[in-house]
Amino acid sequence: MQRNDQTGPTGIYTRLESNARSYCRSFPVEFIKAQNATLTGADGREYTDFLAGCSSLNYGHNDPDMKAALVDHIMSDGVTHGLDMHTTAKTDLLEAFEEIVLRPRGMDHKVMFTGPTGTNAVEAAMKLARKITGRDQIIAFTNGFHGMTMGALAATGNAGKRGGAGMALSGVTRMPFEGAMDGLDSLQMIEQMLANPSSGIDAPAAFLIEPVQGEGGLNAASPEFMRGLSKLAKDHGALFIVDDIQSGIGRTGTFFSFEDMGFTPDLIPLAKSLSGMGLPMAALLIRPDLDVWKPAEHNGTFRGNNHAFVTARVALQKFWKDDSFAKSVQEKGAYLNERLTKIAALVPGAGLKGRGMMQGVDVGSGDMASAICADCFEKGLIIETSGAHDEVVKVLAPLTIPQEQFAKGLDILEAAVKAAATPKQMAAE
Amino acid sequence: MQRNDQTGPTGIYTRLESNARSYCRSFPVEFIKAQNATLTGADGREYTDFLAGCSSLNYGHNDPDMKAALVDHIMSDGVTHGLDMHTTAKTDLLEAFEEIVLRPRGMDHKVMFTGPTGTNAVEAAMKLARKITGRDQIIAFTNGFHGMTMGALAATGNAGKRGGAGMALSGVTRMPFEGAMDGLDSLQMIEQMLANPSSGIDAPAAFLIEPVQGEGGLNAASPEFMRGLSKLAKDHGALFIVDDIQSGIGRTGTFFSFEDMGFTPDLIPLAKSLSGMGLPMAALLIRPDLDVWKPAEHNGTFRGNNHAFVTARVALQKFWKDDSFAKSVQEKGAYLNERLTKIAALVPGAGLKGRGMMQGVDVGSGDMASAICADCFEKGLIIETSGAHDEVVKVLAPLTIPQEQFAKGLDILEAAVKAAATPKQMAAE
Amino acid sequence: MQRNDQTGPTGIYTRLESNARSYCRSFPVEFIKAQNATLTGADGREYTDFLAGCSSLNYGHNDPDMKAALVDHIMSDGVTHGLDMHTTAKTDLLEAFEEIVLRPRGMDHKVMFTGPTGTNAVEAAMKLARKITGRDQIIAFTNGFHGMTMGALAATGNAGKRGGAGMALSGVTRMPFEGAMDGLDSLQMIEQMLANPSSGIDAPAAFLIEPVQGEGGLNAASPEFMRGLSKLAKDHGALFIVDDIQSGIGRTGTFFSFEDMGFTPDLIPLAKSLSGMGLPMAALLIRPDLDVWKPAEHNGTFRGNNHAFVTARVALQKFWKDDSFAKSVQEKGAYLNERLTKIAALVPGAGLKGRGMMQGVDVGSGDMASAICADCFEKGLIIETSGAHDEVVKVLAPLTIPQEQFAKGLDILEAAVKAAATPKQMAAE
Amino acid sequence: MQRNDQTGPTGIYTRLESNARSYCRSFPVEFIKAQNATLTGADGREYTDFLAGCSSLNYGHNDPDMKAALVDHIMSDGVTHGLDMHTTAKTDLLEAFEEIVLRPRGMDHKVMFTGPTGTNAVEAAMKLARKITGRDQIIAFTNGFHGMTMGALAATGNAGKRGGAGMALSGVTRMPFEGAMDGLDSLQMIEQMLANPSSGIDAPAAFLIEPVQGEGGLNAASPEFMRGLSKLAKDHGALFIVDDIQSGIGRTGTFFSFEDMGFTPDLIPLAKSLSGMGLPMAALLIRPDLDVWKPAEHNGTFRGNNHAFVTARVALQKFWKDDSFAKSVQEKGAYLNERLTKIAALVPGAGLKGRGMMQGVDVGSGDMASAICADCFEKGLIIETSGAHDEVVKVLAPLTIPQEQFAKGLDILEAAVKAAATPKQMAAE
Repeated sequence: MQRNDQTGPTGIYTRLESNARSYCRSFPVEFIKAQNATLTGADGREYTDFLAGCSSLNYGHNDPDMKAALVDHIMSDGVTHGLDMHTTAKTDLLEAFEEIVLRPRGMDHKVMFTGPTGTNAVEAAMKLARKITGRDQIIAFTNGFHGMTMGALAATGNAGKRGGAGMALSGVTRMPFEGAMDGLDSLQMIEQMLANPSSGIDAPAAFLIEPVQGEGGLNAASPEFMRGLSKLAKDHGALFIVDDIQSGIGRTGTFFSFEDMGFTPDLIPLAKSLSGMGLPMAALLIRPDLDVWKPAEHNGTFRGNNHAFVTARVALQKFWKDDSFAKSVQEKGAYLNERLTKIAALVPGAGLKGRGMMQGVDVGSGDMASAICADCFEKGLIIETSGAHDEVVKVLAPLTIPQEQFAKGLDILEAAVKAAATPKQMAAE
Repeated sequence: MQRNDQTGPTGIYTRLESNARSYCRSFPVEFIKAQNATLTGADGREYTDFLAGCSSLNYGHNDPDMKAALVDHIMSDGVTHGLDMHTTAKTDLLEAFEEIVLRPRGMDHKVMFTGPTGTNAVEAAMKLARKITGRDQIIAFTNGFHGMTMGALAATGNAGKRGGAGMALSGVTRMPFEGAMDGLDSLQMIEQMLANPSSGIDAPAAFLIEPVQGEGGLNAASPEFMRGLSKLAKDHGALFIVDDIQSGIGRTGTFFSFEDMGFTPDLIPLAKSLSGMGLPMAALLIRPDLDVWKPAEHNGTFRGNNHAFVTARVALQKFWKDDSFAKSVQEKGAYLNERLTKIAALVPGAGLKGRGMMQGVDVGSGDMASAICADCFEKGLIIETSGAHDEVVKVLAPLTIPQEQFAKGLDILEAAVKAAATPKQMAAE
Repeated sequence: MQRNDQTGPTGIYTRLESNARSYCRSFPVEFIKAQNATLTGADGREYTDFLAGCSSLNYGHNDPDMKAALVDHIMSDGVTHGLDMHTTAKTDLLEAFEEIVLRPRGMDHKVMFTGPTGTNAVEAAMKLARKITGRDQIIAFTNGFHGMTMGALAATGNAGKRGGAGMALSGVTRMPFEGAMDGLDSLQMIEQMLANPSSGIDAPAAFLIEPVQGEGGLNAASPEFMRGLSKLAKDHGALFIVDDIQSGIGRTGTFFSFEDMGFTPDLIPLAKSLSGMGLPMAALLIRPDLDVWKPAEHNGTFRGNNHAFVTARVALQKFWKDDSFAKSVQEKGAYLNERLTKIAALVPGAGLKGRGMMQGVDVGSGDMASAICADCFEKGLIIETSGAHDEVVKVLAPLTIPQEQFAKGLDILEAAVKAAATPKQMAAE
Repeated sequence: MQRNDQTGPTGIYTRLESNARSYCRSFPVEFIKAQNATLTGADGREYTDFLAGCSSLNYGHNDPDMKAALVDHIMSDGVTHGLDMHTTAKTDLLEAFEEIVLRPRGMDHKVMFTGPTGTNAVEAAMKLARKITGRDQIIAFTNGFHGMTMGALAATGNAGKRGGAGMALSGVTRMPFEGAMDGLDSLQMIEQMLANPSSGIDAPAAFLIEPVQGEGGLNAASPEFMRGLSKLAKDHGALFIVDDIQSGIGRTGTFFSFEDMGFTPDLIPLAKSLSGMGLPMAALLIRPDLDVWKPAEHNGTFRGNNHAFVTARVALQKFWKDDSFAKSVQEKGAYLNERLTKIAALVPGAGLKGRGMMQGVDVGSGDMASAICADCFEKGLIIETSGAHDEVVKVLAPLTIPQEQFAKGLDILEAAVKAAATPKQMAAE
């Protein structure tokens, strides 16, 4: 049965769901099923997914191996909700995480299962940094996005989202992200601010940064910048929190987005694609000597989502046992870069943003980016914007997308950009 | 394979999981499966569950109908992660919720799918109340528990958990819960505080209260108190937020814990048992005229957990289409009251707390309560404490627990209380 | 030259002075001189002063000995503005303060010259308490008044004044003053709140209280209450700050208002009548082991107002070398009590407030109190209201007021109350 | 009688005055009198004052005309303490201020008499800006100094002073002062931060800036920078608060330090030299349409310091009726610049700071600057350091200092710098 009327003015969504809903306004279709990079609407139409749950579906929709393991777990009455009790699924995941993720990277971080949202993992990190240092202020960056609960929201830059707080947000000092201001050396500025005892910038508990800013416009920090921050943090007795929620779990071509940059973060919030199948799950990785939590000092009802533990374990075993998946992602990233370079050339002044499979085109205006995305949706491609002015068309395809489908999706995007750019060029003439 | 060594000093939990873990310390067993009120350990031993995921498993573990629907959904590639897009599972849930929950109760609240944690639903409520009123302060109550993220944590009373913030928590004014202070009429005090323009209590954005305080010691507010707060809120231009996360979804014998109290809350955060099967899901019910959110003003990656939508819909259809389930819960609650009355009589000075299937015994000290729970666990019963001093032994059995198993669990509890009380009585002589 | 037109719509005050001005609206006269309890208007009319600079003129206007010493100082080019450098006037004052005030009372507090306002002394106390304890929250009381700068304003109860902040005020937890709520034992409530680890009341850095609330309605705390707070503070590792700015310097019949109550405050902010002649001066008395300030950690340009040091020293030497002045104040206080008792009896339901020379009548409504004060002013008596609803007519005469003038002033007040009460009684019949 | 023992370990200051005292540690002498630029110690030794009460004594110590008027006022029983009531002294001052200061400069600001401290005037400005705009954040600058009470302290940059708060300071966003960071265009950065809706910098209630930073190291903002901020404020609906407490009242060669810069501030806090004779007095000038205070919404006991009103009026009439005084100050400023240029040349890498009679030499290290000041004091010159590292030797002589005495004082300074520089140069060889 088709129920697209649900989205009309008399439909149940309009009648019953809060106005806070958003993506469904851009994609007014009821989706009935999904497989890898394809979403199917109630009318049977297929859409290619270049949004991938905002990078929560790096392995695509409904990976068959994860499905199978999850169904097995359910059918055998495996624990579903486990608070933080020991369960088979949790043991298996921890063992896999240690063996496949931590050890090969020389990391010995502790794993904290926070409430199953990215914002909760970020809050846990912020709380821990303050508790350890006895300091209030966390340095976050322009265009950063870290979540919607009050602690994480304070670190989020977007004025509209901040305004939702209805009150002042505290505990965060803002600094320009690398490249955010014309001609400004952000690292040098931060260094000088912290070196000046009369700067009015209080000694920070931590730096909190996304290596690639997902919502903020696909701004990718350089290894030098990240390394510089890491050093600054150490020099000033602050922790270095690298929020890899959107940029991690393979999105940039390696498991973590900061691998090979020459530093190890103190705290790493993870979420989104961590469970592999899009199930709610989050974790905070903690340098072991910093794991000063007392039992239950930070807790949460759903921190033991065992279904997610099952799929997360399968994801690690299937994709990260060797480097073949990472390589394939890197190749896709290179292809994406090549295609987007051509696409960007269609719009005067446009530029490429991001890295790996987290790239996009800054087309210079939110109106144009929005028109492009709407056009793509008409052609069967789900894609969204990003950036302070929604001026970046952002490609977040599943890392597992078949090459042919990927190419076709980019064809649709290219055509939409061309169409959007044409009148603009004419108008400019 | 038994892996109880996981919990020992060389096990993976000790080595890899953050010290923040808690329940697993009281129940050092690896659980391999669970069905209704029974958890099975890796050694094959069966435990009766009087904790029920802290009221997240009101329908027990792995309800067969929910399992079946969920497996069907998975096998047919139903959407798993849907952001806030329209999906079949979501449509079905909204329709069921409107038909089964809202309409029969004369409610027309909008449903906001927040991030899938209780704390996120509470934060959304607090933000919305502040945004609407332009006021900062939310009046919360002694012994209240509302979550661990910074906004909700400010409303949580527990000093240990507050201390985890590492900085001052703001935006909350604290008032005594009904009965919290000897000889104090809390409602009258709050009324006088708000009536006095020099009291220093700022006009509140909202009152935020749990009808029965789950973590705070099973303190149950009277209908008069709740009604009085509701009226005070209205008189002072504040919203009335009733946090039914732990006390709702049937726990007290009705779907909401405040039914028939003579008021309708403005905002109702729900989570825990909302998904039915313990899957992460939360929602905020919003009086329709208060739904002033702008699109995406509060969002979250996992707000479209479609697996939870499926099981939540089954739960409504299976248990709430008529009043038979509610009646059975009420009967179980009456039985529980009867048994706990006798159990409380075993400890001098002990008293009953709570209502419905959310009752317990205040044994007067955390040490005794802890000893009782440890003894129960030895006998195969999982049960926990509650209260400011962990002095309340709390029975949170699945509402679906078979009568015989329920009785046996209470037998174990009775024996443990008797054992714990005996030396105490002797010592007192 | 009479310039009463200054107060009219075209006058310079209306044209040039900010709308924040207040008392001048009640007393629209230009005053040209003042001596003891008498103010003289530009038209030559004399007014008896029952306001005394809100207790800043305890020794009356322009005491001849203070005048003489000050003029001597000026004529001999004594230092006027001394930052915090050593000067003759400062040395003399410190010696007199030690000999006349501290030693006889068994006190060894250090003297901190803060900026010359009461609010600054309060801020210094709050800062020091937080610095010492590492805690944020200071417990202040309903109807308290402690100043207008952001730190002190947070502790001030009045909603209108708080609203002037334009933002949320933080760092203060509010508790009911003794007797503030019907049937409420405030001390017991505070004790229980602090004893309950889940009360949500954070461990306080200090209690901050006025022994008699000047602006809040002349509420006088009992010795038992004050002693109880002192003990609670000690038990909880908090400081006890007694704000004696309005109630101190003889106002209640002893130099400090808390003498003989059986405790010694940790920190005592003083201002108002400290300089004796109404010159701006404030100080914070600090228990010596708590004087952990680093040099200049709290400073202020005008903390060395040497003119005030001169008059303050004269005041101590003239009035406090023996107990004759204190006794005369106590006698005046007894007389005042007797007269006000009769006056209060004129208004049904009215009651006496305060103690010593800081007493008034609660006439039950701000409108009536305002009408009484306006009537008094017509008859040549300057008197003001106090209390959350401005419902208390407050007598704050100079302690040095001649008995005959005091009696005449009270006659005027009595007549005004009678006049105001009469129609009210009629209306009630 | 000489009492220099007061400053020794057994003296009354050590015994009785709080450790917060500071300047007296650098100048351990008891001063007995002062006239214009000369302070006389208890031992009869004369010191030239290059500190001038931190710019509170722009007209020197004990100006004879102010003294005479003040003594007249006292002898005739003129009102001393007037709350905010109309008095002769206040009327006269307001009339003089309007005629001599406001009208000739085309200003129609309202005058608000705040509590008599600079910090209080700043707090009033911050409160008013927040109240008007409904916004919390005030943009203040690196190295800014605005006072020690919690509101103003939040805007003060110095880490030591901020630390005295004992808790987090809120409501202020920090930006680099012009020239504060190498190669950074501060104005451009602020502009871009405010233009970016995702910068995380909340829309400000106001900018708060000192045209010349007194405590922060004599950093002088250019007219372009000040004008740019003024425009930015207007563009973003924020107020422009120019803190002229230390830089105003003639210090830079004009009454206000920002005259002829091409903008008019919305709010101007004044204090220090406003009373002329160093008596405590402060005021906030308010653009008339912004004077939205309600009566008594911000008040303070000592806001009617009539002695200060008398001397302030004399100061205006004596020094500002025509431009002769301003010209003489400008000439002295030019002379000072010439001398300091030569002095700075003595120290490799040293540079000039400030403008007008508010200039100094950055000698590159706090140790050297401190040694220079100590040496000067030995030679009879009182002079202090400034700057984040106390690295600037700051000349704040009375504007009325006789030329010969000024020259001799600078000779002492020159010799001290030369002495301090010599070993340094040797060490470097």
